[in-house]
Amino acid sequence: MPGLRVGLAQINVTVGDLKGNVAKILACVEEARSLAVDLLTFPELAVAGYPPEDLLLRPQFVRDNLDALDTVVKGSAGITLIVGFVDAEEDIYDAAAIIHDGHFVDVYRKQFLPNYGVFDEDRYFEPGSRCAVYEIAGVGVGVNICEDIWYPEGPAQAQAYNGAQVIVNISASPFQAEKRFFRERMLSTRASDAAAMLCYNNLVGGQDELVFDGNSMIVDPEGEIIGRARSFEEDLLVCDLNMDKVMQARLHAPRRRKERPAFSGAVPEKVRVSSKPFIAAKPPLPPHDVTPLEGVAEVYAALVVGTRDYVRKNGFEKVVIGLSGGVDSSLVAVIAVDALGAENVVGVSMPSRFSSPGSRSDAQAIAENLGIRLITIPIEEAFTAYLGMLSEPFAGTEFGIAEENLQTRVRGNILMGLSNKFGWLVLATGNKSEMATGYSTLYGDMAGGFALIRDVPKTLVYKLVEYRNARDGKPVIPQAVLDKVPSAELKPGQADTDTLPPYDVLDPILQAYVEEDKSLADLLAAGFDEETIKRVITMVDRNEYKRRQAPPGVKITPRAFGRDRRLPIANRYRGW
Amino acid sequence: MPGLRVGLAQINVTVGDLKGNVAKILACVEEARSLAVDLLTFPELAVAGYPPEDLLLRPQFVRDNLDALDTVVKGSAGITLIVGFVDAEEDIYDAAAIIHDGHFVDVYRKQFLPNYGVFDEDRYFEPGSRCAVYEIAGVGVGVNICEDIWYPEGPAQAQAYNGAQVIVNISASPFQAEKRFFRERMLSTRASDAAAMLCYNNLVGGQDELVFDGNSMIVDPEGEIIGRARSFEEDLLVCDLNMDKVMQARLHAPRRRKERPAFSGAVPEKVRVSSKPFIAAKPPLPPHDVTPLEGVAEVYAALVVGTRDYVRKNGFEKVVIGLSGGVDSSLVAVIAVDALGAENVVGVSMPSRFSSPGSRSDAQAIAENLGIRLITIPIEEAFTAYLGMLSEPFAGTEFGIAEENLQTRVRGNILMGLSNKFGWLVLATGNKSEMATGYSTLYGDMAGGFALIRDVPKTLVYKLVEYRNARDGKPVIPQAVLDKVPSAELKPGQADTDTLPPYDVLDPILQAYVEEDKSLADLLAAGFDEETIKRVITMVDRNEYKRRQAPPGVKITPRAFGRDRRLPIANRYRGW
Repeated sequence: MPGLRVGLAQINVTVGDLKGNVAKILACVEEARSLAVDLLTFPELAVAGYPPEDLLLRPQFVRDNLDALDTVVKGSAGITLIVGFVDAEEDIYDAAAIIHDGHFVDVYRKQFLPNYGVFDEDRYFEPGSRCAVYEIAGVGVGVNICEDIWYPEGPAQAQAYNGAQVIVNISASPFQAEKRFFRERMLSTRASDAAAMLCYNNLVGGQDELVFDGNSMIVDPEGEIIGRARSFEEDLLVCDLNMDKVMQARLHAPRRRKERPAFSGAVPEKVRVSSKPFIAAKPPLPPHDVTPLEGVAEVYAALVVGTRDYVRKNGFEKVVIGLSGGVDSSLVAVIAVDALGAENVVGVSMPSRFSSPGSRSDAQAIAENLGIRLITIPIEEAFTAYLGMLSEPFAGTEFGIAEENLQTRVRGNILMGLSNKFGWLVLATGNKSEMATGYSTLYGDMAGGFALIRDVPKTLVYKLVEYRNARDGKPVIPQAVLDKVPSAELKPGQADTDTLPPYDVLDPILQAYVEEDKSLADLLAAGFDEETIKRVITMVDRNEYKRRQAPPGVKITPRAFGRDRRLPIANRYRGW
Repeated sequence: MPGLRVGLAQINVTVGDLKGNVAKILACVEEARSLAVDLLTFPELAVAGYPPEDLLLRPQFVRDNLDALDTVVKGSAGITLIVGFVDAEEDIYDAAAIIHDGHFVDVYRKQFLPNYGVFDEDRYFEPGSRCAVYEIAGVGVGVNICEDIWYPEGPAQAQAYNGAQVIVNISASPFQAEKRFFRERMLSTRASDAAAMLCYNNLVGGQDELVFDGNSMIVDPEGEIIGRARSFEEDLLVCDLNMDKVMQARLHAPRRRKERPAFSGAVPEKVRVSSKPFIAAKPPLPPHDVTPLEGVAEVYAALVVGTRDYVRKNGFEKVVIGLSGGVDSSLVAVIAVDALGAENVVGVSMPSRFSSPGSRSDAQAIAENLGIRLITIPIEEAFTAYLGMLSEPFAGTEFGIAEENLQTRVRGNILMGLSNKFGWLVLATGNKSEMATGYSTLYGDMAGGFALIRDVPKTLVYKLVEYRNARDGKPVIPQAVLDKVPSAELKPGQADTDTLPPYDVLDPILQAYVEEDKSLADLLAAGFDEETIKRVITMVDRNEYKRRQAPPGVKITPRAFGRDRRLPIANRYRGW
């Protein structure tokens, strides 16, 4: 059997940047050609960026994407490419172009369109129905897109039955913690079910709330991963596929693999692209050893990449962060420095009459450890001005939530003032536990362009800090920050637990309610206290309006607030 | 032929308020029974409220909705009902229960699920496939749901072919200006195509960004509207349907009406519910003359209802509005008074060193005309405090956008302070032209719980004020407010046209680009100036991040910002 040298171009494209994306694609083509790659693949919608959302409703955008694909076709001399783009013919399709040696050969159109979680693909695309097998350099190749591979009786099964020895799946699969394991297990199963080589080419990089983790891989017919691209970085994974392995797997395959699959798209159709490689003599490949990231390290990397790409893709250079000396803003500052470099991060310490001396010195210590500029602006003057201006309408009332929020809104204003003056993007520092319960101030600590840890529960915030402190053997966040009792410091002696249950009780309830749709009965059965559950659920439900006005952040859990969880604001449902 | 007395209960339900919605349904049942109604219908998802969004992903919510439907079934003695609810059986369905005399008879499941614009129904529901015809009081009745009736070859056609003389469509069709005309024309066509009586029962009331306009109606087989329910108000429309008219229409129908329709759901199935009415002797019906609202009056009513329901359904009593003396905040105040009563509206005048004397006196005049409480809080003190606090980092820079925004953020803080202290909901006052171009300050004039005119272009703001001023023969907004040059008054001699094209140029460009997906080429062909078009498009694209943090408001155009228009923030696409 002939072999096949495949290249998986795991690239970081930008939504709408058709020229930039094409340039990136052509640079990979160049590199792959120099390695005598026979078949080079790119992620889902590589030309347009993913997800383009309602740009897809603009006819001109779709036309421009077709023109951009043309440029790729023209640059494809001497190689075969599979490139994600938006196909158009009466309706539009999430498609893969099969391109060979300067010619557009054929198109595969995605058949399973996800329309759950963060996905809205039914809003835009028609599903395809054809699933041909392409003879590329003498090898049968089936092509499909992202969601298609998650169905056991999807196109891959039909393609394998119709002669595909290699299945290429181009994807844009967003990160969430632990998802990689499910994905790898599924891909192993698909490869061994199909008795084929499976090339999974994922997207990498951040796009608004989503981060794509890369982790592209090649799985052999026994379900073994024989090639890996890096986590959260661009990469070109080149690998020689041994077709004898496919032959062997098929000869030993149980009967059921040889029966015609039920899948409706399984009309046998073969398209000859090329019967032999352009370059038979292959140069040796450099070693490509990759250890994928796991656990807290993986989440940390997602936050770094999500932050870097949000800042850069939106055209910002520098960011500014309010440093309270607490654990959340400290973590945000460290991530920002890892994402953008210390020279691009500015910290602002804004002590009030209620700030503890420890908070001020901790903020200073973090800024010093990170080597970032620190601006100190006490908020007393503006706070006093507000209290004076409001003294008449507030006459006869007690110091309360209004006065507390005024302080954090003064801080929000200062950060936004610096942002407006110097063009720095404000990074908000709220975590998921706060976003869920509304333990945060609209236009105060919630103010900013990006809230990178808004999907990170408080208990995970601590783990991330511990991970980062341990990573280089040189802690950047002082132990005092981790040890202090969490407090908003907006009135004397305040602690988060005045309002919230302890975080190790709160976070599991939030996970069950927000991410898993558990009911009061479910939570009672899990052993939580009834009054606590009801209090938490009520806080979550009541604060939907705040979350609607929160800046975006990086999705890392199975269900982030935002497009992933769509609840009405006016909502009288109580589950008891 | 027997007649049929139908009742269309056009009710204002609340999402998630299962108990309240059922109580409302049962009150209508009571009233309809007293009028000897044979068949009483309710809007789409009347039990759950529409749209329930991700509440539908909670098994307990779906179960509770089934329990609530049970209560309706138990209360249905002596009448036949068609009630919208969430059906569940392996998957969930947007469904209509056919209920008769204390029994659940059958269920119809929506077949065409909208997944465009503001709709996400593919996210939740499986489509149904059965479409039976029910014999109710001896008359053949077909039931379908909302989107189903918009398809010429949908369930109505099949039901008519299979013997339905009456088609009941239960809907939750959101308002947009002028949509009623399209809807009426379509319903007339469907009724005459089917040669049937068509009862269209729409929802009424506001739910977050959506307002449902009611305007339920009954159309006879000739396409004539023979009964109308009110615009934007709850109503019970009762009407005696003359079945001879249907017989006559069918006898005279052209051949094509008698051919088997192509629709796949057209499996003939008949279900007998009742062969004669419970009460044959019908009491006479009171006259029910309704003139539907049109044009600017209709938009005004939508804004009033949207505001009232947002405030009330979220549990607020009073609202607070920053009154600048400009036309936007003046309109918002008038609408708020019409929605909630003058006693529930508080105006706040917050003059600065740049405010013209006219602005202060105009704000006062409006408050007096409306009879609302006015609080005056000059912002100078806090503004000066900020300038002092920021003097070091701002040293050497010119007065600019940072200093301008600080002023409006002080105002935002004052309004939010009053909100936090007294529980008043802040109404933000930005219009669609500002939202589109980003000519507004995040956390400043954009601060608030509800931005009721965020989908109203500035040119329409003026028309709404003129309409309202003319309505009762007693203008409430002084002519000076309409005559003055629009200005944010954040620096000396500022005018909106320093930054924006004149509104009569801007608004048509925005409509074409935002609502109609027109390209630069389209706009050039329409005669707009190239530099102006590019400037406007660039402003719209760059300010997506601001819109993401804006409070919700009432959708009145074909495409509102928000769930109706989903664009990436990081987006490098430029159409030139």
